[in-house]
Amino acid sequence: MKKIVIFGVGLIGGSVALALKKAQANSSSLHIIGLGRNPSSLASAVRLGVIDACLDSRDDLQSTLADADVILIAAPVAQTAGILARIKPHLNAQTVVTDAGSTKSDVLDCAEKILDEQFDQFVGGHPIAGAEKSGVGAAKVDLFVGKNVVLTPTASTQAQALARVTQFWQSCGAKVSQMSAQAHDSIFASVSHLPHLLAFALVDEIAARPNAAELFGFAASGFRDFTRIAGSHPEMWRDISLANKDALLKELAAYQNELFTLKTLLENEDGEGLQALFSRASVARNAWSDGKH
Amino acid sequence: MKKIVIFGVGLIGGSVALALKKAQANSSSLHIIGLGRNPSSLASAVRLGVIDACLDSRDDLQSTLADADVILIAAPVAQTAGILARIKPHLNAQTVVTDAGSTKSDVLDCAEKILDEQFDQFVGGHPIAGAEKSGVGAAKVDLFVGKNVVLTPTASTQAQALARVTQFWQSCGAKVSQMSAQAHDSIFASVSHLPHLLAFALVDEIAARPNAAELFGFAASGFRDFTRIAGSHPEMWRDISLANKDALLKELAAYQNELFTLKTLLENEDGEGLQALFSRASVARNAWSDGKH
Repeated sequence: MKKIVIFGVGLIGGSVALALKKAQANSSSLHIIGLGRNPSSLASAVRLGVIDACLDSRDDLQSTLADADVILIAAPVAQTAGILARIKPHLNAQTVVTDAGSTKSDVLDCAEKILDEQFDQFVGGHPIAGAEKSGVGAAKVDLFVGKNVVLTPTASTQAQALARVTQFWQSCGAKVSQMSAQAHDSIFASVSHLPHLLAFALVDEIAARPNAAELFGFAASGFRDFTRIAGSHPEMWRDISLANKDALLKELAAYQNELFTLKTLLENEDGEGLQALFSRASVARNAWSDGKH
Repeated sequence: MKKIVIFGVGLIGGSVALALKKAQANSSSLHIIGLGRNPSSLASAVRLGVIDACLDSRDDLQSTLADADVILIAAPVAQTAGILARIKPHLNAQTVVTDAGSTKSDVLDCAEKILDEQFDQFVGGHPIAGAEKSGVGAAKVDLFVGKNVVLTPTASTQAQALARVTQFWQSCGAKVSQMSAQAHDSIFASVSHLPHLLAFALVDEIAARPNAAELFGFAASGFRDFTRIAGSHPEMWRDISLANKDALLKELAAYQNELFTLKTLLENEDGEGLQALFSRASVARNAWSDGKH
């Protein structure tokens, strides 16, 4: 790979740039160009040496995209359609386009509409890497090492496009797997999107009470960890929730059923039933955690 | 204080012993005796120098308790009644009894019944200190430094008993506050007990699915923190849930209402409403977290 164009040089885009530069033995032959909404953030990415150059809105997009090997869209997902529309008129047949959004069905629908006959050059992707802090200042060369990246090719995706994006993420140190966009959205509704909504709901419910200050005053480490993800970016999670609405509503319904079961056990003072439920959860959680480390 | 008797020398009981020994300038004048269900664990506490001596079931409880300044019950809460019944026949008028249980209304009810006319020597207490690991091997001299300890005196509690237990925890480095047992149970149902139940419910629901292994395989750091408390001790949480049933059912109902609100916003694709809810939660969570550190 000789030229990479990154739309959105924040935590994800910046970390990809750092990792690719490190991976490419002779990194002077790799040229990484950044684009984005915020000129001062892009300038800072160049100053930090994260990217080689940045393009502002007056610069010529056509020549920049002409010989790009990979275009990565790592901007907030709500911008994906706009970015694809800007790319489309200049998209060379040799270029592969991929993204880093947390939901995939909506991105594929949008890419298919906008890229049209060039949709076979698009590979949806989702790097599963922590994003507590944001912005290029938070970028880390090893952010993706050992982390999962899910790619969601379709029947029409070009084999070489898929291979190039796979290699792209493997160069960053990630473990790459493939599944359908629908399977992806269903899995992440369960293990990521629902927990975020549950944490937001708990904090919002407590914060609205007259004695919220007293309640927060006695909250300790269990509360801290449980609610950490409730500190996440509201706009990003609005977009994810809406984009993955159907899968998320299914997860929410299943969870509401489980809470109903728990409530019934508690109302009936069914100690055995409560202990059995807690034990199943505790065993599964600790087995998962042990397997992770 | 010259003699402390601790029932249950685990994480809490052991850390109290370490902290009191450190606090007392001439710690040779302080004698700490441990009792418990597990003789080998008690022997290990003596070997580690955490306590000065331990009592087994054949030893004479009367002489041990006769000149005790404070008796601390730090065993699993389900054992509290049995321990109080063992103490009662030997309870000197100069001795103060306190506990470290996570629920307080049930403990006070039980203490009032069993200690009867000596209930004024009892002060309910709850140290708010992490307990991921258990057992005396996990004890730490600074476990309570800067942590909250809530005491729940009643109208009949002796002023000097309350003062002695307050000093006891302050010597361990804790911030001591007072409230009614009912207020305590309501606050902790909200910021501790409910989050535990919610985390248990999520993991149990996911673990029961045919594709649980795949789901856990893609779970990342957000899931890890959210579910950490689902790895907690099932028996302990059964006891807490049953002991604090009424307050917990109220919290669960309020939370179910909040989830219903969230579900409705999602069904209506109300992006503005979702973002407003997430923002309220995010601002409150980050303000709390900033104030803590």
